[in-house]
Amino acid sequence: MGKSVLIVNGPNLNLLGQREPEIYGSTTLEDIKSLCETSARKRELTISFMQSNHEGDMVDALQKAGSTHDGIIINAAAYTHTSVALMDAIKAVGLPCIEVHLSNVFSRETFRHKSYISLAATGVICGFGAKGYELALDALADIFEQ
Amino acid sequence: MGKSVLIVNGPNLNLLGQREPEIYGSTTLEDIKSLCETSARKRELTISFMQSNHEGDMVDALQKAGSTHDGIIINAAAYTHTSVALMDAIKAVGLPCIEVHLSNVFSRETFRHKSYISLAATGVICGFGAKGYELALDALADIFEQ
Amino acid sequence: MGKSVLIVNGPNLNLLGQREPEIYGSTTLEDIKSLCETSARKRELTISFMQSNHEGDMVDALQKAGSTHDGIIINAAAYTHTSVALMDAIKAVGLPCIEVHLSNVFSRETFRHKSYISLAATGVICGFGAKGYELALDALADIFEQ
Amino acid sequence: MGKSVLIVNGPNLNLLGQREPEIYGSTTLEDIKSLCETSARKRELTISFMQSNHEGDMVDALQKAGSTHDGIIINAAAYTHTSVALMDAIKAVGLPCIEVHLSNVFSRETFRHKSYISLAATGVICGFGAKGYELALDALADIFEQ
Amino acid sequence: MGKSVLIVNGPNLNLLGQREPEIYGSTTLEDIKSLCETSARKRELTISFMQSNHEGDMVDALQKAGSTHDGIIINAAAYTHTSVALMDAIKAVGLPCIEVHLSNVFSRETFRHKSYISLAATGVICGFGAKGYELALDALADIFEQ
Amino acid sequence: MGKSVLIVNGPNLNLLGQREPEIYGSTTLEDIKSLCETSARKRELTISFMQSNHEGDMVDALQKAGSTHDGIIINAAAYTHTSVALMDAIKAVGLPCIEVHLSNVFSRETFRHKSYISLAATGVICGFGAKGYELALDALADIFEQ
Amino acid sequence: MGKSVLIVNGPNLNLLGQREPEIYGSTTLEDIKSLCETSARKRELTISFMQSNHEGDMVDALQKAGSTHDGIIINAAAYTHTSVALMDAIKAVGLPCIEVHLSNVFSRETFRHKSYISLAATGVICGFGAKGYELALDALADIFEQ
Amino acid sequence: MGKSVLIVNGPNLNLLGQREPEIYGSTTLEDIKSLCETSARKRELTISFMQSNHEGDMVDALQKAGSTHDGIIINAAAYTHTSVALMDAIKAVGLPCIEVHLSNVFSRETFRHKSYISLAATGVICGFGAKGYELALDALADIFEQ
Amino acid sequence: MGKSVLIVNGPNLNLLGQREPEIYGSTTLEDIKSLCETSARKRELTISFMQSNHEGDMVDALQKAGSTHDGIIINAAAYTHTSVALMDAIKAVGLPCIEVHLSNVFSRETFRHKSYISLAATGVICGFGAKGYELALDALADIFEQ
Amino acid sequence: MGKSVLIVNGPNLNLLGQREPEIYGSTTLEDIKSLCETSARKRELTISFMQSNHEGDMVDALQKAGSTHDGIIINAAAYTHTSVALMDAIKAVGLPCIEVHLSNVFSRETFRHKSYISLAATGVICGFGAKGYELALDALADIFEQ
Amino acid sequence: MGKSVLIVNGPNLNLLGQREPEIYGSTTLEDIKSLCETSARKRELTISFMQSNHEGDMVDALQKAGSTHDGIIINAAAYTHTSVALMDAIKAVGLPCIEVHLSNVFSRETFRHKSYISLAATGVICGFGAKGYELALDALADIFEQ
Amino acid sequence: MGKSVLIVNGPNLNLLGQREPEIYGSTTLEDIKSLCETSARKRELTISFMQSNHEGDMVDALQKAGSTHDGIIINAAAYTHTSVALMDAIKAVGLPCIEVHLSNVFSRETFRHKSYISLAATGVICGFGAKGYELALDALADIFEQ
Repeated sequence: MGKSVLIVNGPNLNLLGQREPEIYGSTTLEDIKSLCETSARKRELTISFMQSNHEGDMVDALQKAGSTHDGIIINAAAYTHTSVALMDAIKAVGLPCIEVHLSNVFSRETFRHKSYISLAATGVICGFGAKGYELALDALADIFEQ
Repeated sequence: MGKSVLIVNGPNLNLLGQREPEIYGSTTLEDIKSLCETSARKRELTISFMQSNHEGDMVDALQKAGSTHDGIIINAAAYTHTSVALMDAIKAVGLPCIEVHLSNVFSRETFRHKSYISLAATGVICGFGAKGYELALDALADIFEQ
Repeated sequence: MGKSVLIVNGPNLNLLGQREPEIYGSTTLEDIKSLCETSARKRELTISFMQSNHEGDMVDALQKAGSTHDGIIINAAAYTHTSVALMDAIKAVGLPCIEVHLSNVFSRETFRHKSYISLAATGVICGFGAKGYELALDALADIFEQ
Repeated sequence: MGKSVLIVNGPNLNLLGQREPEIYGSTTLEDIKSLCETSARKRELTISFMQSNHEGDMVDALQKAGSTHDGIIINAAAYTHTSVALMDAIKAVGLPCIEVHLSNVFSRETFRHKSYISLAATGVICGFGAKGYELALDALADIFEQ
Repeated sequence: MGKSVLIVNGPNLNLLGQREPEIYGSTTLEDIKSLCETSARKRELTISFMQSNHEGDMVDALQKAGSTHDGIIINAAAYTHTSVALMDAIKAVGLPCIEVHLSNVFSRETFRHKSYISLAATGVICGFGAKGYELALDALADIFEQ
Repeated sequence: MGKSVLIVNGPNLNLLGQREPEIYGSTTLEDIKSLCETSARKRELTISFMQSNHEGDMVDALQKAGSTHDGIIINAAAYTHTSVALMDAIKAVGLPCIEVHLSNVFSRETFRHKSYISLAATGVICGFGAKGYELALDALADIFEQ
Repeated sequence: MGKSVLIVNGPNLNLLGQREPEIYGSTTLEDIKSLCETSARKRELTISFMQSNHEGDMVDALQKAGSTHDGIIINAAAYTHTSVALMDAIKAVGLPCIEVHLSNVFSRETFRHKSYISLAATGVICGFGAKGYELALDALADIFEQ
Repeated sequence: MGKSVLIVNGPNLNLLGQREPEIYGSTTLEDIKSLCETSARKRELTISFMQSNHEGDMVDALQKAGSTHDGIIINAAAYTHTSVALMDAIKAVGLPCIEVHLSNVFSRETFRHKSYISLAATGVICGFGAKGYELALDALADIFEQ
Repeated sequence: MGKSVLIVNGPNLNLLGQREPEIYGSTTLEDIKSLCETSARKRELTISFMQSNHEGDMVDALQKAGSTHDGIIINAAAYTHTSVALMDAIKAVGLPCIEVHLSNVFSRETFRHKSYISLAATGVICGFGAKGYELALDALADIFEQ
Repeated sequence: MGKSVLIVNGPNLNLLGQREPEIYGSTTLEDIKSLCETSARKRELTISFMQSNHEGDMVDALQKAGSTHDGIIINAAAYTHTSVALMDAIKAVGLPCIEVHLSNVFSRETFRHKSYISLAATGVICGFGAKGYELALDALADIFEQ
Repeated sequence: MGKSVLIVNGPNLNLLGQREPEIYGSTTLEDIKSLCETSARKRELTISFMQSNHEGDMVDALQKAGSTHDGIIINAAAYTHTSVALMDAIKAVGLPCIEVHLSNVFSRETFRHKSYISLAATGVICGFGAKGYELALDALADIFEQ
Repeated sequence: MGKSVLIVNGPNLNLLGQREPEIYGSTTLEDIKSLCETSARKRELTISFMQSNHEGDMVDALQKAGSTHDGIIINAAAYTHTSVALMDAIKAVGLPCIEVHLSNVFSRETFRHKSYISLAATGVICGFGAKGYELALDALADIFEQ
């Protein structure tokens, strides 16, 4: 049977489509979830898709993934830049983990250039909107095959 | 009918009146709530008043305000200095938002000089104790009239 | 009889209404003075209203306020960010002093984030345009009543 | 009757024993709890032992300790380096508080050298693994006796 | 007919497979070229694949791409961190441009965290080895379809 | 009739010719004024030439230029590096403004590398002694012709 | 016979007129060359005009100027901010050298504020578009006459 | 006949004796003037004693000292830390100049540790209250005798 | 027979009890020595106790400990923050080493936050006064038993 | 009987007169000692005069001064910039202490601008050569008389 | 047969003897080549000696050395301070590599203190003029013998 | 007769061969002394060889070298990074001085990248183990011959 991937979305991503569309576009998080499901099915992966505004809930979810999933995709949004706890959780579970951002965070405000997630992630994909999740699933599938 | 304002209070503000009274005075958060209610009534505003020690709960509340309130007053306390998530939430809901602090944070420890909230807020009021909330309601009323 | 308040305005504020209206609006300093007078009368306060492009004149005015006024409102404009002399003068006269800015200086250029005035002021109000002066008078009135 | 101590453990410490054992060893948090209970009994102390991945829950717990405990031991883990809220909570409750870390955080990544907890704690003990909790209980007992 | 993509590889990438294999793996640049060709064919893209140790040659190539290609993939290697000229060239040609790195540069030496390329690129993909080029082609194809 | 240019000279420039001649040469400010008058006449420009050691006087002069001149040349000398007020004044009057320095400030002490004037000026000319004023007049004439 | 001037243009300047016209205008480098030739003729100067995207070629050209030219005008573009080699070459040839930039680099991104060229140049002219080259030729002619 | 010394006092020093006496003591500036006159007479020096809150006035005074005095004592107060203009004026007049501060500025706020005056002064005396002026006169007398 | 511990005390600790008692308390170093001896005896350890104001003597002592002791406790006092030599000595002898400070150095002046000793020590104990030495002996005993 | 003053001289001051005379002049330390003795006699003070290249010896001497002297003059030379131990010793003995430097350290290399001694000293005198010691004795005599 | 050494010289070193002789002396690069040949012969080494102003050429040369030489001596001149590409090339070829500078770069401008080459080199020799190359050959010979 | 060289070795170098052999190798300081003696004899130099853990002793030794030796070789070990006193002593004695380090300090911890010794030394040799001393003797012999 296929591998299972946890997709974790951070604070305010539930507002996608209404929040600052000039930066984030009109795609909703629900759209991204559908895209991920379609994309995962093609690669014979199953996915769990969550969103939370709570750093602690995201840590909880990452920890549980250790025993229930084979890989992680995380768009930690604002917590990307401030959460050592998420970084520690990713290191602790030891699964391949891909950091995704919808926008190119490196061409935005300076405080968005620093990512604690990057220090623990296998790789980073940013700037491609919803497509980034699909690329991340593809990358994970590739890692699973190695 | 009058406009509605969400008043968000951050971590440890529930201890007001007992916590370091030499900095924060003897007024309790309950006192501030009463003051706000009285003050709002005079301006024909209605208010919702919340306090939480949880960054995620504050993000949740701010997001919901988008469809239920017309303006925000936020004293993010300690999260003022560390929360990109709150800043993103304020930007996302797009309501006029006034940052309040009881003490003059700019004359305290250096790490209290930086505010992520300020980057998203319409204006800032600090150093006037409970009175600051009243000034913020007045400022919001003024903005609503424009 | 009512208390007396000195309102000090710094460099280039005399150009208000013509200077970069996209940031500072179309209100003139004369408008603000009228607003302050009306607002002060309501609170049984009297005001002196001055503007200068000269740091030294502002220091002189603040010093004299020590024997002729009961409180200070200062919008030091550009000198906010560079004048230790104004800060020292405010500390020296020992009156309650409220720092006002028309725009939210914290969301503008980095060099406008630092205020020497804040280190000596009782409180700070910024981002509310001319309304900020009215809030400051209200805050001072509140302080006088304590 | 004996004094009561709240022992607060931060994010990812529930994974102890499986998370990066080359840094944190094979002792589990359950082992540490047992060790603390035994150790507390010897000193006629009672302990409450909690762990959370949620900064807000930790703030809540610290606040409640003000009326139910006599001292605090805190290993804030990742939140050590980012949480002003925990620091404020410790200051607010005003109990003796000892900061513990399993590893010597000062010989690890630079961002782990800074601790907001230290600014509020009575003392710091780090680098001794589970033994550090026992030393902290001993130190608290000593403080209670003064 | 399909779109055309220029793939630019920077200094020392011609040594791939022999240079520090513990970081860069055993895949050669020739392998990556083949992979790209196969991958491009699937997406009905044509590619030009170049490598140079010369910053100026890379600038020349990027400039010419303006009139001969529809998109750019660039692994600028060491020049990523030091070349304003490459950044300016990317901005000047105005094509969609994807920055690729074989390793996760963000978990390596500090001076590798800064990228001038990122300031001009559409998006960034790093940490996936040769697979990253395939993901970049996929992302470009997606952009072409919009 | 020709355009009119205000030429503003800052603190200590009145001492030119006697002050540190190894850096500033033996030309006096009177010499520069003559040179400017001759040079302006050739370009059918009229000039006003002032010098002050007072930041406030310079701000006053710049403000008045808004209604009486068509362009500004400013050598703010020491205030170049410390005056936000001059920068704000230049922005406020909205005239083309050219920053001139006699010496190459960029090859002198570090604190002379930063210029607030540059943030508001159209262009900068430095290192050419008195000739720099002539170049600035030429540049202004060119701007007037556009 | 007249003096001879080498005019060196750095990376991406060959794209002038098409590259980011909102910053650099619609003038092409060919236009600037013509302007320089006309302008030089008036001052009885002869010029050599080159452009390269290669730092090394620019260093080569500067070195050769030592025996074939009397002065240098350099717009090092992106290499302005990163090239110690160009600075060393200018110092080594010992000719008067004028740094030119089309835009006011000091009001753009922070990394464009630093110039290695300035540390070796006689003077700097920036913000005047193509006109800046003419001013530089004028300045050089003035230096030749001293 | 004896040498003549200009003693320049900066902003807010006219408030001495009433301003923050816990830092500056109860001595007034008039007292210091008397002390200086007595002390100067003993050393057969004549003094001019001035105070101003205006940076420009202080620059004017320093410039004039070049032709009327033999040495300078300056307590620039707040302008110590921000005035390049005063530093340039001291360098320009070329007289021996002694920097005095009543308090030990190095043990106060960080922004008071930096002095532009020190970069131009012969020597520095701080921390001795009014006595510091007497020491400075003594030091100047010593320099005059060399 | 029991293990042997070297206890090294740095500069000014010989003044304990008279030096700034509001920070360091009234306990003398002799008191601490007695406390250590009693405490060591309970744990069947023997101790050597030294104090020196000389960095070199402390390095000498640490070096000799390599052949005569089994563990080290060091309160390097002022040298904590400045001595690479002590750090190198601790690394060189390779014994378990515990860093002790009487006060919580992390809540004092910034320059006391950095410790070179911490980079080489097994663990750190600070903020518990003389009790800290006892805790350190306990920690060492625990390490010896492993 | 008169008060007693310890005069402490730091590393390399024993070479005075031969070491870099362009900075330190031709006066020897023996000359300074004589000058101090003469000067002390006039003020009915007795002095002890020492020099050492050893930081530890200087700490020892300062400590002993606590019971044998009434004031301290210290020229800590190179240790000024690096010794927290000397600063702690001065604070510990609690005597009035005057920091002296022969040259104006603030106009030399940047690393000489920082003084740990200043954080503990009553006042600072620098830039007057040997005369500075005499001024310091005068200042101490003044302090003794208060 | 003897080992072979590549000696790489960076930008502007071809001007040796004419460029800033007060820093670099009158020896030409040709002189250094002769010195190296003589010196190499004594140690039974053969050398290849190159100079380039092109970073890319230097990278090319270093890469080829991997299959044709046994060791590298590099004086990267200006590229020392800016070239990550050269550092990567040295690491990639994996040969012993000695960094040479004619002058003591550490006592010159701050930007010359940082060397990317040092991060990859076996050792560094600087400040000995042409002699430094001979020492480097000696050091390499010593390494070859191990 | 031959020239005489003082070789000064700093703290913990007496432990060479036992201290962290993976960094410093198994050669002892005694081995290095022998190597130096042999090497000196070949060059007709005589050497004095000392080691001390005391900064003050090293300063003393350097000072005495002024009248008894012709050149200095110094491996200041840990004091390299912290001792202004050693730097001042080297400048004071005015002899040619070569800084040696066994390891390549520039590829180790950041705090080892800064050397006060380098600011005063003629040249630097690092990364060649004991061989570095031999190269330094060779370099000194070369300097003596000039």
